[in-house]
Amino acid sequence: MTDILPSYIRDGWWAPEEDPDAAVVRDASTGEPVVRLSTRGLDLPAALDHARTAGQERLGALTFHQRAVLLKEFALVLQERKEELYALSERAGSTRRDSLSDVDGGIGVLFTYSSKGRRELPNAKVYVDGPVEPLSKDGSFLGRHVYTRLPGVAVQINAFNFPVWGALEKFAPAFLAGVPTVVKPASPTAYIAEAWVRMLVETGRLPAGSLQLVSGPVPDLFGALRLGDLVGFTGSATTAARLRAQTPEGVRFTSETDSINASVLGPDAAPGTPEFDAYVKQLLVEMTTKAGQKCTAIRRAIVPAAAVDAVVAALGEKIAERVVIGDPRAAGVTMGPVVSRAQRDEVVRQVRALQDAGGRLLLGSLDAPEVVHADGAVGPAPEGAFVAPILVGFADATAPAVHEVEAFGPVASVLPYASLAEAADLVDRGGGSLVTSVATNDPDVAVELMTRIAAFNGRVLFLSRENSRTSTGHGAPVPHLVHGGPGRAGGGEELGGIRAVLHHMQRTALQGSPEMLTALTGVWHAGAEARPGGTHPFRRSLAELRIGDQVVSATRKVGLDDIETFARFTGDTFYAHMDEEAAAANPFFPGRVAHGYLLVSWAAGLFVDPAPGPVLANYGLENLRFVTPVSPGDEIRVVLTAKQITPRETDEYGEVRWDAVIRNQRDEIVATYDVLTLVAKEGASV
Amino acid sequence: MTDILPSYIRDGWWAPEEDPDAAVVRDASTGEPVVRLSTRGLDLPAALDHARTAGQERLGALTFHQRAVLLKEFALVLQERKEELYALSERAGSTRRDSLSDVDGGIGVLFTYSSKGRRELPNAKVYVDGPVEPLSKDGSFLGRHVYTRLPGVAVQINAFNFPVWGALEKFAPAFLAGVPTVVKPASPTAYIAEAWVRMLVETGRLPAGSLQLVSGPVPDLFGALRLGDLVGFTGSATTAARLRAQTPEGVRFTSETDSINASVLGPDAAPGTPEFDAYVKQLLVEMTTKAGQKCTAIRRAIVPAAAVDAVVAALGEKIAERVVIGDPRAAGVTMGPVVSRAQRDEVVRQVRALQDAGGRLLLGSLDAPEVVHADGAVGPAPEGAFVAPILVGFADATAPAVHEVEAFGPVASVLPYASLAEAADLVDRGGGSLVTSVATNDPDVAVELMTRIAAFNGRVLFLSRENSRTSTGHGAPVPHLVHGGPGRAGGGEELGGIRAVLHHMQRTALQGSPEMLTALTGVWHAGAEARPGGTHPFRRSLAELRIGDQVVSATRKVGLDDIETFARFTGDTFYAHMDEEAAAANPFFPGRVAHGYLLVSWAAGLFVDPAPGPVLANYGLENLRFVTPVSPGDEIRVVLTAKQITPRETDEYGEVRWDAVIRNQRDEIVATYDVLTLVAKEGASV
Repeated sequence: MTDILPSYIRDGWWAPEEDPDAAVVRDASTGEPVVRLSTRGLDLPAALDHARTAGQERLGALTFHQRAVLLKEFALVLQERKEELYALSERAGSTRRDSLSDVDGGIGVLFTYSSKGRRELPNAKVYVDGPVEPLSKDGSFLGRHVYTRLPGVAVQINAFNFPVWGALEKFAPAFLAGVPTVVKPASPTAYIAEAWVRMLVETGRLPAGSLQLVSGPVPDLFGALRLGDLVGFTGSATTAARLRAQTPEGVRFTSETDSINASVLGPDAAPGTPEFDAYVKQLLVEMTTKAGQKCTAIRRAIVPAAAVDAVVAALGEKIAERVVIGDPRAAGVTMGPVVSRAQRDEVVRQVRALQDAGGRLLLGSLDAPEVVHADGAVGPAPEGAFVAPILVGFADATAPAVHEVEAFGPVASVLPYASLAEAADLVDRGGGSLVTSVATNDPDVAVELMTRIAAFNGRVLFLSRENSRTSTGHGAPVPHLVHGGPGRAGGGEELGGIRAVLHHMQRTALQGSPEMLTALTGVWHAGAEARPGGTHPFRRSLAELRIGDQVVSATRKVGLDDIETFARFTGDTFYAHMDEEAAAANPFFPGRVAHGYLLVSWAAGLFVDPAPGPVLANYGLENLRFVTPVSPGDEIRVVLTAKQITPRETDEYGEVRWDAVIRNQRDEIVATYDVLTLVAKEGASV
Repeated sequence: MTDILPSYIRDGWWAPEEDPDAAVVRDASTGEPVVRLSTRGLDLPAALDHARTAGQERLGALTFHQRAVLLKEFALVLQERKEELYALSERAGSTRRDSLSDVDGGIGVLFTYSSKGRRELPNAKVYVDGPVEPLSKDGSFLGRHVYTRLPGVAVQINAFNFPVWGALEKFAPAFLAGVPTVVKPASPTAYIAEAWVRMLVETGRLPAGSLQLVSGPVPDLFGALRLGDLVGFTGSATTAARLRAQTPEGVRFTSETDSINASVLGPDAAPGTPEFDAYVKQLLVEMTTKAGQKCTAIRRAIVPAAAVDAVVAALGEKIAERVVIGDPRAAGVTMGPVVSRAQRDEVVRQVRALQDAGGRLLLGSLDAPEVVHADGAVGPAPEGAFVAPILVGFADATAPAVHEVEAFGPVASVLPYASLAEAADLVDRGGGSLVTSVATNDPDVAVELMTRIAAFNGRVLFLSRENSRTSTGHGAPVPHLVHGGPGRAGGGEELGGIRAVLHHMQRTALQGSPEMLTALTGVWHAGAEARPGGTHPFRRSLAELRIGDQVVSATRKVGLDDIETFARFTGDTFYAHMDEEAAAANPFFPGRVAHGYLLVSWAAGLFVDPAPGPVLANYGLENLRFVTPVSPGDEIRVVLTAKQITPRETDEYGEVRWDAVIRNQRDEIVATYDVLTLVAKEGASV
């Protein structure tokens, strides 16, 4: 008998001895059994507890950057072994092209999170959100927001269509946040999820408790959850609603559900334009990739009434040219089966529902297609889950069914529209979508549609001649941008770079003195203790430097001749520096004033320690504000304080952010800014 | 018979003709009837529809800044008329001090949102979130996030304790986002909400449909909501759970529920320290303000076991000294009644529940106290809703009731702890709180507690000698910081400055060409059309300037003598500029290189148009990054492009953000940054 697929629980592989009721998962093309699934006897509460104890402890010991480095190691291992995942994916009906979005897409998410984690997060455990908020006039009471990781476990319930990407896009941000994961893959492709989990386990680099896998049903899951846990669900809207209702108070539940996504052909994108061609090509890709089993696939092609026939004809031509249905293991096959016979039956049922609501089949049919078998032979495949691409036409674009019924296969409907307002109204009838795409080269069309549809969509893609070749595609969520959508699409958000990391953390407002906020955030706050004097901080390596280390400069008097010298040298003869009368007429200046760039240049001269040392470079500057103008005769001085220290995990240096404040002889603030430097980790202080 | 309190519906006042079943609202001190409440016959769907049509249209026609200016007008009117609100509040039991937090607090929220709206939001209708994400190597396909307002209505269900602040803190961000509001006040204080709504209506400045008021029950509310609407609820956790379950899919539901908030006395804050005194003083304030009817009030005083007696004694002394219970209309009264006799009965019931769980009354009693009547006489008040301050002691700090039962009156419990870990565990047993405060002067104590409790709290306040006088207080949410908390506290977020505005908007990822993203966001994106040549953009007023207007500068060669001149002039003799050998040994430089400040100073000289004109000042610079070092002999040039234009509503000028890119003779990017200028709205181009 076929083996029961093991689960990875409490840092070990586990399967029930035997279970005669175990479900059988079958090959999508041939119907042969692949594995059996059962979790009979699995101690789920113990698994959750292991995540909350060992997992939290081990992940909590690492900084964001250390977790990010591990994500890259995981990505590299999967990259090396991806052929194994491709081969398994073929059993589920995925062609090589399909695996590009699932396997390579999933690996790409790990790489992106590794990179963003190191570029956009501090090398620390707390994330500071937004600027400091002064809450008292004397600066003794401040407010600031931080994110700290949730103290529980992230339970990730995935859909069958993306066993690799769909799981990794949830795992990567949870891991980066420091929250342990329990993955629950969907049955039909659970063996592919088991494969990548095994690859990560075999690296020996997974922190204990950080990742567990439940290969089969988890009936008592929701009763075992509590405050600090979160559930990320991908799947059908009805299942999402059911699970949401079961979620205990205090447990975060986010869902991303397949939606009735739309693609609008702009009125300007007439046949013959590059946008028309790009639109039809994209529609073909969305209908046939993963045999249309994507929560982001185009289900509604919203097209100017006059262009419907042209779209149908062009799409029909492309299908005839490019679509070869069959077993993905056969050469030349461009579209595989859906994942199972049950799924095929479901697609057929939904297409019939569309027909009952007035839909006509414009392309394709419900008959089982002839397909290419693994051995190259062509013929019927009674045990396979094959469906031909189907385009359904609706004369009445407002028929409710077309905006509500999802045939989760290679199926789309085409709907005519007369005006942009009508096109937008049709989009919005989807009740909330993951994505809508718009093919147009007219910015006015884009703006009008966006204004009407943005709030109904998690993502809106504008396809034009400029990016028809470079577009990442209607159906492809990218890790940099949020994935999710309002209403029917589940109301959640995933991905979006660091945004998804923060979804696994709690935002808390902190209030306290500068001293306390400095201790709590690891970022120096003005007013907290500083250490001027002693060794110049530019002579301290990252190993020696501490936040609060400070230079208080000498003063320097600004003369009119300095302003004129600077103007001549730079060519910046703006009247505020050169013409007393005109400057005095300006609402912001008392008369001629020094150049702002003169002030920051002099400030550097005042605070810099010139000899070679651990400070390697000034790589930038942020948030410069000129507050008080400097007139001839004024004196300036600068105070520079180490504000934030970010050692890099994989380099011999790191970033130091310095707080710079220039003041004048009346102690008024002249300018404030942050100086960004690269500083060596080691290097003798002098 | 007492009048039925009118509702403000579809831009007019409405009340049922008569309703014998109308509920009677009574004076908290005297029991006299104040108003009656009924909404019999109210057409709620029509009201919601009015918000979604007229309200959306009128608010949608305004920019963020225009809405912000209106909020300030509203604040000024309420400020002028606040004595009327104080007088009404007395009927509900509020002293003048209580009204400071409700009435003045509410007005403060309007001012803060008006100010933050103009400083932190663009003068536009779309909010851009985060940086551009390049999605193709050639820059033709970009991603960016925007927020657009939700297309529905914000239904705000408020608690009785803050009829002004509680409503305005929801209304202000909704209004600023452009989402119309329907306010549903709690019955016992609905007449105070009616009063401020009437004041705003009387300004004649409320956009049609932007604000409606339902003065009474709305039984069929949730059936009438749909995608694009949102519900903001403040009240009890049990009601929140019931309403959440009724909320239709796709309607945002956020709740902020009273929680069992804690206040921890640090182990260092022994009797005699300033922190001990601040702790006790704050505890008194939290128990007695609004007679303890605050969702943020301290319910659990978590105190080192050795300090419990001292805390009880000090608090008892302060109560004896400062607390005068009575009708708020009487002179000298410092604490009024709770809102109603029913509320008093509820408080008594909950205190008995605490007693049943092992609590002992350490201070106060459940007997009806003698009180000061409005005429100054002292005696019992059988029709009034008075409760004395009560402190309950628990020997077993882990008794579940103390972490779960909320006596919503002047009641707190005191719990002993032995170690910081134990103190944190007690805090977390609250199951999620709005706020915890910690009195400590030891940053290590602060860090250890924060690490353990932050994820269980929406806000954590650290009270120390430095801010004991300037702290805004444990129980006072401030508009700058988020208000809300996980779990028991409702799981929602309100306030937090612009964060609350964004809660009323949908985040959408946009993908497209630079041209399209420029049109969609109103912010110029590199790669989009630009207009070099023609009139120098510094000669264009805000009325004439368009994003994409551009200066392409001449080139200028950097010589070694220039570097040396600049070093001498500024004093910046960092070795990378002055010492060939040392510079070449630096990992980032090929040899001596020009100062970054030289480059930006020269760039200004290259792009500036010196004569007086509409550009008034360079007030800052952002996101400066030095990308490629410049060696002697290199030539630089700069391209400056108008990126974002923000006219001010109440000044004769506005901000213009310019995109600056310095390149070398090999077309490599040397530096990128944004230049911030102030530009006059009008002024002849030359």
